[in-house]
Amino acid sequence: MTQTPSSDNNGDKDRLKLRRVAIDTYHENVAYLHRNCELYRAEGFQALSKIVIMANGRRIHAVLNVVDDEAIVGTEELGLAEQAFAQLDMQQGEPAWVIHAEPVESMDAVRRKIRGERLLAEDYREIASDIAASRYSKMEMAAFLVACTQSGLDREETLYLTRAMADTGEHMQWDAPLVADKHCIGGIPGNRTTMLIVPIVAAHGLLMPKTSSRAITSPAGTADTMSVLAKVDLSPRSMHEVVNKTRACLAWGGRAHLAPADDILISVERPLGIDSESQMVASILSKKLAAGATHLLIDIPVGPTAKVRHMSQALRLRKLFEYIGDRIGVHLEVVISDGSQPIGCGIGPMLEARDVMQILEGDPDAPNDLRQKSLRLAGRILEFDPDVRGGQGYGIARDILEDGRALRKMQEIIAAQGKIDYAFIAGPLNIEIPADDDGVVTAIDNFKLAKIASLAGAPMERAAGVDLLKKLGEPVTRGEPLYRIHAAFSADFNFARHLAEQDSGYRIGHPDEISHSYMEI
Amino acid sequence: MTQTPSSDNNGDKDRLKLRRVAIDTYHENVAYLHRNCELYRAEGFQALSKIVIMANGRRIHAVLNVVDDEAIVGTEELGLAEQAFAQLDMQQGEPAWVIHAEPVESMDAVRRKIRGERLLAEDYREIASDIAASRYSKMEMAAFLVACTQSGLDREETLYLTRAMADTGEHMQWDAPLVADKHCIGGIPGNRTTMLIVPIVAAHGLLMPKTSSRAITSPAGTADTMSVLAKVDLSPRSMHEVVNKTRACLAWGGRAHLAPADDILISVERPLGIDSESQMVASILSKKLAAGATHLLIDIPVGPTAKVRHMSQALRLRKLFEYIGDRIGVHLEVVISDGSQPIGCGIGPMLEARDVMQILEGDPDAPNDLRQKSLRLAGRILEFDPDVRGGQGYGIARDILEDGRALRKMQEIIAAQGKIDYAFIAGPLNIEIPADDDGVVTAIDNFKLAKIASLAGAPMERAAGVDLLKKLGEPVTRGEPLYRIHAAFSADFNFARHLAEQDSGYRIGHPDEISHSYMEI
Repeated sequence: MTQTPSSDNNGDKDRLKLRRVAIDTYHENVAYLHRNCELYRAEGFQALSKIVIMANGRRIHAVLNVVDDEAIVGTEELGLAEQAFAQLDMQQGEPAWVIHAEPVESMDAVRRKIRGERLLAEDYREIASDIAASRYSKMEMAAFLVACTQSGLDREETLYLTRAMADTGEHMQWDAPLVADKHCIGGIPGNRTTMLIVPIVAAHGLLMPKTSSRAITSPAGTADTMSVLAKVDLSPRSMHEVVNKTRACLAWGGRAHLAPADDILISVERPLGIDSESQMVASILSKKLAAGATHLLIDIPVGPTAKVRHMSQALRLRKLFEYIGDRIGVHLEVVISDGSQPIGCGIGPMLEARDVMQILEGDPDAPNDLRQKSLRLAGRILEFDPDVRGGQGYGIARDILEDGRALRKMQEIIAAQGKIDYAFIAGPLNIEIPADDDGVVTAIDNFKLAKIASLAGAPMERAAGVDLLKKLGEPVTRGEPLYRIHAAFSADFNFARHLAEQDSGYRIGHPDEISHSYMEI
Repeated sequence: MTQTPSSDNNGDKDRLKLRRVAIDTYHENVAYLHRNCELYRAEGFQALSKIVIMANGRRIHAVLNVVDDEAIVGTEELGLAEQAFAQLDMQQGEPAWVIHAEPVESMDAVRRKIRGERLLAEDYREIASDIAASRYSKMEMAAFLVACTQSGLDREETLYLTRAMADTGEHMQWDAPLVADKHCIGGIPGNRTTMLIVPIVAAHGLLMPKTSSRAITSPAGTADTMSVLAKVDLSPRSMHEVVNKTRACLAWGGRAHLAPADDILISVERPLGIDSESQMVASILSKKLAAGATHLLIDIPVGPTAKVRHMSQALRLRKLFEYIGDRIGVHLEVVISDGSQPIGCGIGPMLEARDVMQILEGDPDAPNDLRQKSLRLAGRILEFDPDVRGGQGYGIARDILEDGRALRKMQEIIAAQGKIDYAFIAGPLNIEIPADDDGVVTAIDNFKLAKIASLAGAPMERAAGVDLLKKLGEPVTRGEPLYRIHAAFSADFNFARHLAEQDSGYRIGHPDEISHSYMEI
């Protein structure tokens, strides 16, 4: 990077004192200069200029906000919002220098993409690396995402983006020929199969070091649910220790620094509500590539209120996953599953953890749909083992679950990660939502139930959420409870209850009206 | 707009105290809540959530930043950055309420555009009105701009966008059948024709209430240059008074609230460096439509370092201008002019004002290129007058200039707007940049000269800039000065000098190498 002339002599006169400004700007680096700061005036900075901060031997990029209040930043200070301040690893008052940021060169490639051109591997590498280094503003990331969505990425470009994003962070190394992983593309509340599959697969002897995300918009992610039972915020080093001990882990992926460019892009993609298949596939596979997976099972639930609504889209996605998987050298299989209703009974971290433990403990009240789906998926992963004959996976998985090996493995994993003492006591404020008619349950809206559980406080309140009492096809009489809402705080409780009373998310009718099931596994 | 349940009862418990946070967030509304604010927790807000602030009978949209420092915002306060605070017109400590913002409905249309669909007039109306109401985040605006740039707007869509943006603000009304206006699409330093055309046209008797912008990236806009001579920051009311008195004005358009959606979009478009012809035409014509122009002359300079580099592009732009002009009922003519070098001698507000006054005063040292170009353009505008025979405009304009009527009209306008006492003393720090060879000037880089003048401090420092001593085709000997840099501060002076010494922006060679001129007027 070339510099403006002033940076040739970072003399004392240009030096600013670092100050932490306790504002959370999420994934964007923001810096604050006082309007009367001599440097601000002399350098011709403007509000929202992109600047480079040099301090402690590092260079970070930030967007400049101009301040008129010395209580926030003084005229000889450089204020940095939390994210930017953390990146420098310095104390307040230490010296820092600021220069104009040169325009990000890889934005030229983005502008070529906007013009409809195909980009090369090198272009995607530079874009991903600039994004990971916080050189892109949110506007620039939005421009990149829209350009990719509108003219589309072809398969080769999706491959380039996958590799480029994987290479922006760490690559985990596992000393095993077969490292199993799974991913569900989401949208189905409850669906906590991972916490059953991992102990089953590890009990069989395969390595399955699973990193998961926390919920962003959903009422629970696997990391949120596992955190009810054990510590999940593991460093890469302790993740390795757990895996060495137990052949598996169920950890939050956040500290492993896997494909950070992907996390940053997601923080823009989500509020924009744009969604492209290429981005989704590149996002998932870049994380798995960085996590060191060699064998990967992808679950695509299909249903009228799932993320993927039509079989044709599921099949198209499957081809793209398979193509990229082959090119990056990951053995990948795709399962298209029934996404027509929530899986299991609980929605929310504690209620989902309860379902999982009931299944592991062989409790006759355990939800059978979650048990069956988990066994089927675990069976497919067991068949990655060359010694397992095709078609035998399910039976092996069932044996491991039924004879208690899965429960013991789960207890080992929990102990290795750090057990948390818990009691399955759902949020004390609760209400049952009744059926409004006689008949059978003909539809359950995944999106609506997830929304109700979120409003009730999940995942922040672990004991909050929704407990389903009826599933598709079950007969109900008018007034009979369909599900129970649990909350910890009355504001949350009232939000969730209000929404559920407007529309329960359930449809009651004649058995013929039950929405078609896509189950093929 | 529908509301979340909590807004049904804006009780005392949800009330926050308004606080001004002296951070300049430019065109984005930013609100600050303390992380321990009860409302923040109860409502499930997230960093960068979009929220609606209700106070003083108004509703404004903002992006939420989370704060951990009570010196910035307390747990019972709602902090608003300058822009948002100003919109509410309230005192600190007054009560305000906050709710989740519903997703902006017109983003559905943007997502349709991303998918490549053609949008309707109604879609553009809603998008422009939501942008003007600060309901779009910068990311969302970037998404809209990229979507429009990539798949392109057809002529009808450009028309819809033009009308939609014009309708986001005020429409100025002038009590005259012919309201003349002009616009140059820019990129040529010096080119201050407007300040000569307006007094000539008004002296002839046509109404020409001219609003101009301040420079954003260039070393001077017409408003900056006029502000050397007179007050330009006029309210719409005093603009009318000036026009009633003198038949013209030369004012800054900022207070007239013309097509505000356009200004907001430009604040995103510019840092992204994306540029579409449809956006440019819609931007210019929406402002002119709102300003009440009935007759409009558009100047498109073409040259190797101008904004428009090829005649083919200029012709395409001209057709688009003509098409939209006809549809919005503005009589519009396009002139394609020579953009191969700066026009006039001065670059920077004071130096350009000096050129203008020299021409008005008949000074033999006045730059002839600026004089000729202004007379030609003024002549074309005079021919909008039905009583002026085709071809006579230039002669009439020249007579008005030569017999001093233009100067007197300019003095009237200056007096009506509010005269500023000035002396044409250029910045005291100065250096002459010499020719590096014998020969003639064969090329002058508009972009480079503008950049040097900007670094020297223009337009913020009015007396800073560049004074050209040689123009295309003039013979020079090695060491002879090409131009003089003027600055007020030594930091600025060193920046500008450093750049000019690296590359003067002039090419010296054989007369045959002079870049082709596009002058056709």
